[in-house]
Amino acid sequence: MTREQLFEQINKKQSFLCVGLDTDINKIPSHLKKEKDPIFAFNKQIIDATHQYAVAYKPNLAFYEAHGAAGWEALQKTVAYIPDEIFTIADAKRGDIGNTSTMYARAFFENLGFDSITVAPYMGEDSISPYLEFEGKWAIVLGATSNKGSIDFQDLMLERSSQKLYEKVIKKSSEWGTPENMMYVVGATRPEVLMKVRTLLPHHFFLIPGVGAQGGNLEAVCKYGMNSHGGILVNSSRGIIYADDSKGFAQAAGAKAQEMQQTMARFLK
Amino acid sequence: MTREQLFEQINKKQSFLCVGLDTDINKIPSHLKKEKDPIFAFNKQIIDATHQYAVAYKPNLAFYEAHGAAGWEALQKTVAYIPDEIFTIADAKRGDIGNTSTMYARAFFENLGFDSITVAPYMGEDSISPYLEFEGKWAIVLGATSNKGSIDFQDLMLERSSQKLYEKVIKKSSEWGTPENMMYVVGATRPEVLMKVRTLLPHHFFLIPGVGAQGGNLEAVCKYGMNSHGGILVNSSRGIIYADDSKGFAQAAGAKAQEMQQTMARFLK
Repeated sequence: MTREQLFEQINKKQSFLCVGLDTDINKIPSHLKKEKDPIFAFNKQIIDATHQYAVAYKPNLAFYEAHGAAGWEALQKTVAYIPDEIFTIADAKRGDIGNTSTMYARAFFENLGFDSITVAPYMGEDSISPYLEFEGKWAIVLGATSNKGSIDFQDLMLERSSQKLYEKVIKKSSEWGTPENMMYVVGATRPEVLMKVRTLLPHHFFLIPGVGAQGGNLEAVCKYGMNSHGGILVNSSRGIIYADDSKGFAQAAGAKAQEMQQTMARFLK
Repeated sequence: MTREQLFEQINKKQSFLCVGLDTDINKIPSHLKKEKDPIFAFNKQIIDATHQYAVAYKPNLAFYEAHGAAGWEALQKTVAYIPDEIFTIADAKRGDIGNTSTMYARAFFENLGFDSITVAPYMGEDSISPYLEFEGKWAIVLGATSNKGSIDFQDLMLERSSQKLYEKVIKKSSEWGTPENMMYVVGATRPEVLMKVRTLLPHHFFLIPGVGAQGGNLEAVCKYGMNSHGGILVNSSRGIIYADDSKGFAQAAGAKAQEMQQTMARFLK
């Protein structure tokens, strides 16, 4: 999917909501566990109930790999089921040497058909550039993450630069691609970081996790993260997909997604 | 597997060879492509031919994920086929927030039965500590990698510390576990880095990639990386498993593995 197409979707749906499909077999409603593929059965209903409010879906690979080959099949069916006009993100956080990154890119872009994949920057340019060679596909680089441990290394101050590691990572890696094939993960939990990163990269899309269960605030995220085109995808996983654990789970998820979309619409004005 | 058991194996086999199972369907001998599961068929013969010279096997996840559910099954069969006394490494380079890391740990340690997994440090403590809660299991943290891009961020000098990022990553993360449940990836391509890391961590095992195809030298690795117990696992992937592409591929791989084992035996004296 191109940047232009993503802008169009955001505009059309008045939403920049990404629904995180962190589908945990222990958290899905019990009546679904009798299904042949409970994870896909859950995702299907979640997608049916939320797709009119969402511009992106983000399956978290760990939750599928936990079930081995069957999990991989559930993932495959899920990506295939997501409507074509919705952006898909493989939340895989891969990062390896060049020839291995190429294998991952093929796995996620070609075989599974994802539009994008999250990647870790620690191994540098040759671990990221292979993902940038696929037309219409995106690498979403971990910039400043939303978790507690993000300060352990990402916030280290670098010598003679008045820059923290995450700033350097973001600035340097952005030279390897363009705002047409790279996005950045910037957590919602620290608005001041979001503001700083937006100054560094005025044109790139940010994928913003951490709203909801992790404590980030949607208003602050919009205020500090958006650019003139919108330019953000705000993820919510647990807050939407586990809004309810009864037979009405999908309806509850849809209501939560709609609620977020309506808030987002206000900020898009 | 415990550290003591790994030392025993190294001593018994007079080897610290790790065979990397980067099994690429495009590189395996053509007669195997008629098999129902060509990747497992290849791995099985490689394991049969090399297991007496190797103390560890390291499947690279990208090469299995490239084949979706079928790849995952090949991986599962491969891990199950590796003799129990041989250390297994899931070369997955995962790194995510706490609850996701726990899911990955279960996937690799419990479901697949790996002894260890490689993990990326960028997201800090809560991305690594979940792997340390499984008895007899190991997290192998990316320290200083062997690839070209390793210098992009790992070599950045930190303010007021005369330390590079990789030194800080290694030193700080080592406080989250012990030499009984943590190892470090330290590339073979820069012996001076290996020497430095050994000074920082005298007791930990290092997993050392980059000998062979990537240009690292086994003698230098032994000289600068070993501690008094050995304390290193040296990986070779392409140099062993693709030593030959005829029907005699496994025999050729066995000969290559034996050759490396014999060199290693000299250094263990």
